[in-house]
Amino acid sequence: MTTEWKTVSLFPIPSVIYLIHNNVQFATLTYVDTSTYQIMGNLKIVTTGILFRLFLGRRLSNLQWMAIVLLAVGTTTSQVRGCGEASCDSLFSAPIQGYMLGVLSACLSALAGIYTEFLMKKNNDSLYWQNIQLYTFGTLFNMARLLADDFRGGFENGPWWQRIFNGYTITTWMVVLNLGSTGLLVSWLMKHADNIVKVYSTSMAMLLTMILSLFLFNFKPTLQLFLGIIICMMSLHMYFAPPNMLLDMPLTVKPDEEKLIEVSVDRRTLS
Amino acid sequence: MTTEWKTVSLFPIPSVIYLIHNNVQFATLTYVDTSTYQIMGNLKIVTTGILFRLFLGRRLSNLQWMAIVLLAVGTTTSQVRGCGEASCDSLFSAPIQGYMLGVLSACLSALAGIYTEFLMKKNNDSLYWQNIQLYTFGTLFNMARLLADDFRGGFENGPWWQRIFNGYTITTWMVVLNLGSTGLLVSWLMKHADNIVKVYSTSMAMLLTMILSLFLFNFKPTLQLFLGIIICMMSLHMYFAPPNMLLDMPLTVKPDEEKLIEVSVDRRTLS
Repeated sequence: MTTEWKTVSLFPIPSVIYLIHNNVQFATLTYVDTSTYQIMGNLKIVTTGILFRLFLGRRLSNLQWMAIVLLAVGTTTSQVRGCGEASCDSLFSAPIQGYMLGVLSACLSALAGIYTEFLMKKNNDSLYWQNIQLYTFGTLFNMARLLADDFRGGFENGPWWQRIFNGYTITTWMVVLNLGSTGLLVSWLMKHADNIVKVYSTSMAMLLTMILSLFLFNFKPTLQLFLGIIICMMSLHMYFAPPNMLLDMPLTVKPDEEKLIEVSVDRRTLS
Repeated sequence: MTTEWKTVSLFPIPSVIYLIHNNVQFATLTYVDTSTYQIMGNLKIVTTGILFRLFLGRRLSNLQWMAIVLLAVGTTTSQVRGCGEASCDSLFSAPIQGYMLGVLSACLSALAGIYTEFLMKKNNDSLYWQNIQLYTFGTLFNMARLLADDFRGGFENGPWWQRIFNGYTITTWMVVLNLGSTGLLVSWLMKHADNIVKVYSTSMAMLLTMILSLFLFNFKPTLQLFLGIIICMMSLHMYFAPPNMLLDMPLTVKPDEEKLIEVSVDRRTLS
């Protein structure tokens, strides 16, 4: 358990990155429609790969880079608007600022993830102590904001801690429980696995949600969902399968110059 | 130049396979709509890979199989009907016979290709002599059919050879020239390269046509075309790049059991 300020002071940084990220997201949405926004979200997979290489210095093979790009392509494919869907906004018609903000947003989101991984792997501190530091700062920032709102409103409705659980139903609590456990699992992933494992799990979760929606809400299966699933499965296999498994067989012989010459010589002598 | 009947008699077989294939295609179209038909056409890529392995005994690595599936997925992705397109037929709603005939059609088409490769590579005969045999039988079959039609019509409009070039414009001649040279190039490919090279070239040609249509006919670029191109490029690289190029870097370390144990032991001693 490292308690010196030099280390602890690094933990508010992810909160700050997420703060900027959230504001960039809202700025992006003033330029692009929601469907373009959702599609651009997949860029985060590629930026995570790039920052993973640049900031954590983890080397990836050519094939693993291709797998990361394919994962982004696969999740995007599953989100392509099909025929017959009500909204039909053109994807390439937003102002350039929208796309630039989308790229910035993807970079910030990836940066926060990479920074968290760096923090979690930096030393052998307990995961619990690291979580406490990570979440305490977030909680403090939020409490400060709530208090500022109270001051601005002149404490008309009383202080925030008297109202914080107002309107909570069983569903609300389930959402809280869900988000809370997701947070803990992500910390665990960052410490014991890495950001790439995280992008794979979130992508697979998204596809699984889409498949479950087909059954639970009677959604119509689309060709693009089916194609997206195949692409993501291929990508998963390309990234994680051991190389000797992928290349167990010799490559097929490609036509080479020598052969062609040999054939044409034969032809001349035969005919 | 092999002229013995035993060898020559193999050359009408591709024509016969194509004859059956054409009839199966028409049967398929009585069950499925054109868009489903077009999508199912991509199955041919996968069946070509399978027959290539089974009949020509060519071994493919795990990665090359994945590349073949990805090529089929990529071409299909580029053909996904976008929002705003007029026709919106459901893809999964045709009767089962339609899909079965589609699979049969893909197998027959692949079989004809594989058989032609077998014929062309069987011996060192000149490409020209092989082409003569291949096309003479096709021409004879077509002439027989035309003559039969003439007999059935009682030679009302004269024999077919007096009418064969009726209505030919410069465009018609260009189409003839185009199809003729394609045929010769495909024979060349079958002799000096292979069926997989052929499926890659036809897929790339399709994507190139779609890109050119954007400029020439002012078509709107779709997200699915863009995604399809990326997938096909990845597939091309996966299939043809030398393995040491794909795996130049070591794989990143995955979390293993030992590490987790080590960390938890450290945790206990530190906290």
